Amino acid sequence: MLADQTILRIPGPTPIPPSVERAMNIPMVGHRSSETSDLIRAIQPKLQPIFGTKQDVVILAGSGTAALEAAVVNAVRPLDEVLVIVTGAFGARFVDICEAYGIRVHQLQVEWGKAVDPKEVTHFLEQHKEISTVFATYCETSTGVLNPIDELAKGIRSVSDALFIVDGVSCVGGVPAKLDDWGIDILVTGSQKALMLPAGLAFVAMSERAFERIQANPNRGFYFDLIKYRTNLEKNTTPFTPALSLLFGLNQALDLLEKEGLENVYRRHSLLMEMTRAAFKAHHIPLLTSDQDASPTVTAIRPADFDAEEFRKVLKNDFRMSIAGGQGHLKGEIFRIGHMGYCSPADVIQTIGLVEIALMKTGKQIELGKGVAAAQQIYLERGTK
Amino acid sequence: MLADQTILRIPGPTPIPPSVERAMNIPMVGHRSSETSDLIRAIQPKLQPIFGTKQDVVILAGSGTAALEAAVVNAVRPLDEVLVIVTGAFGARFVDICEAYGIRVHQLQVEWGKAVDPKEVTHFLEQHKEISTVFATYCETSTGVLNPIDELAKGIRSVSDALFIVDGVSCVGGVPAKLDDWGIDILVTGSQKALMLPAGLAFVAMSERAFERIQANPNRGFYFDLIKYRTNLEKNTTPFTPALSLLFGLNQALDLLEKEGLENVYRRHSLLMEMTRAAFKAHHIPLLTSDQDASPTVTAIRPADFDAEEFRKVLKNDFRMSIAGGQGHLKGEIFRIGHMGYCSPADVIQTIGLVEIALMKTGKQIELGKGVAAAQQIYLERGTK
Repeated sequence: MLADQTILRIPGPTPIPPSVERAMNIPMVGHRSSETSDLIRAIQPKLQPIFGTKQDVVILAGSGTAALEAAVVNAVRPLDEVLVIVTGAFGARFVDICEAYGIRVHQLQVEWGKAVDPKEVTHFLEQHKEISTVFATYCETSTGVLNPIDELAKGIRSVSDALFIVDGVSCVGGVPAKLDDWGIDILVTGSQKALMLPAGLAFVAMSERAFERIQANPNRGFYFDLIKYRTNLEKNTTPFTPALSLLFGLNQALDLLEKEGLENVYRRHSLLMEMTRAAFKAHHIPLLTSDQDASPTVTAIRPADFDAEEFRKVLKNDFRMSIAGGQGHLKGEIFRIGHMGYCSPADVIQTIGLVEIALMKTGKQIELGKGVAAAQQIYLERGTK
Repeated sequence: MLADQTILRIPGPTPIPPSVERAMNIPMVGHRSSETSDLIRAIQPKLQPIFGTKQDVVILAGSGTAALEAAVVNAVRPLDEVLVIVTGAFGARFVDICEAYGIRVHQLQVEWGKAVDPKEVTHFLEQHKEISTVFATYCETSTGVLNPIDELAKGIRSVSDALFIVDGVSCVGGVPAKLDDWGIDILVTGSQKALMLPAGLAFVAMSERAFERIQANPNRGFYFDLIKYRTNLEKNTTPFTPALSLLFGLNQALDLLEKEGLENVYRRHSLLMEMTRAAFKAHHIPLLTSDQDASPTVTAIRPADFDAEEFRKVLKNDFRMSIAGGQGHLKGEIFRIGHMGYCSPADVIQTIGLVEIALMKTGKQIELGKGVAAAQQIYLERGTK
């Protein structure tokens, strides 16, 4: 087997573009140097459109979970009552973080694989006026569901003064996000998904309303204190040592997104989703989510007549291709294919071609090439440069 | 279009494995340092099996053509009579080099797209006892033909004392080569093909017989003087400044080939050829060469009812995928797909998937997925890890 080749198609970490690898591979500079200030200054205007905000976007050295926790400890106080919309494993993580801080959590549980209905949320808030904050997941990585954040934001604002905090980890950069226009209060993400970087950077964008609530909170912890980051950012610096090589990589990744054009980036992700879904539909292999609820960044497949784990093993053994399994109660029941960030129609064509081989080797009899043909057809109908 | 992605499927330069990129990306060392001697010492035993020789393999800083010229200026003298077997553009290059040195050249012209028949060569040599040297091309890059070097060597030895000099540029490392066993006298290659490196290294392996003739030649030029390289190699050094980063890369590339196992490497290349050929056959698109004459490293396709250059443009515009056009009188008549070096069955599946899309966009009506299915089928029948 060809040494050194790996094909990474999990829903993050995602592959790194070569020019981003090169940008990270630089002689280290001082973290209080003018080079670092210049870098931080250069990044902000390129980052803001991705979050759909005119506000500064805070960058912490940390994983996506660090961003989630930063949102919680800054915006919410112990004993506050909050609503967490749980559509999968990452909704549940918000619950765990809140409970670790003694926050009183109401949960709106949604069947895994389905998006939340905004009406249920507004209905719940009308019944629970004491709720100060609503948490939702934009793309639920564990199921491949994209929740309707714009409608949720609108619905919440119409019935409540609660802040709306959104986990955008596995989609921001791959789908539109408009913090200012939609009325999101805090939107967080990590670097290792649609932003085409290794893990290690956590991003937090916040509304003026959120900023005011955070300022009024006397206990914001130390490392996660967002006021420190915002104040430092005004001087193009950071309160603690920044993950410098990742920032150099981020600057280049943002240039790539800008070069492609954000609208084209979003269109590409939709195309990759449609190609992937069409391929499995062609083989009558069930998808976990409906077309309506599907995320452009990750697709979950729920096989009816073959073993998901065996199938993943074949892909790994034959092609060193990694796709994800299920989480929680879907472990062993589904597999998930990431198609976000540094991923093209050519990558999806390859993925489907290898998937078909692996299906045959797993004992699932299919017509070879039929899924590829369905994906090719979508490309021919919808593909743009 | 996704920025930063390119798909390189020309018959060299070929893609570079990530660990080879990393190996080349090192702080520079002195070219007369112990680090460099250690590196040269480490490379030799890994290089020899690729040329099938127990002799030291000389490495020059230069392109493949530098290796061809080095073979000519060392082994042949002006006014010598030589036979060049010309099966395509790179056979013709041997003619040009010989003529630049006032060497008297007989040519055995073979129709482009066909391999030479060894009987024709022995017959020619029987008629021309004055011929001191025979030149042949192992893989003729311009047509995707693999000439039968083992049979040629045996045939030449059976009727003549002529030295046998072989251009192995676009296949050594991807197909078996046995200088000692087959009776090749000089076998040369470049770094940018099956050896998975950038261009810049030229390799020359030679028999004892060739070495003796070279030693007796008083005019070996200066930079190309192989005796200088051989003598220096015994002391693990080079007569002139070596291309050090490429040597570090070479050491890693050789480790990758050793890790996979040379026999597996050769099997992989045959598999890639068969997958590629099966795909075009499935669509009834003519191949330039017969199964018998086809090279495991590059496949030439001669379209009957669509424009090769338009087709190449679509691949480039839609996917930034590069394949090669025709050379010489085949310009515009054929296109060529490289599948050597850092290339896997997954890469061929992708290539065929994109080729099918490009065929449709070029106006060639095909059944989508059919070529992919043919390649998948070959993999399922023949593919090994």
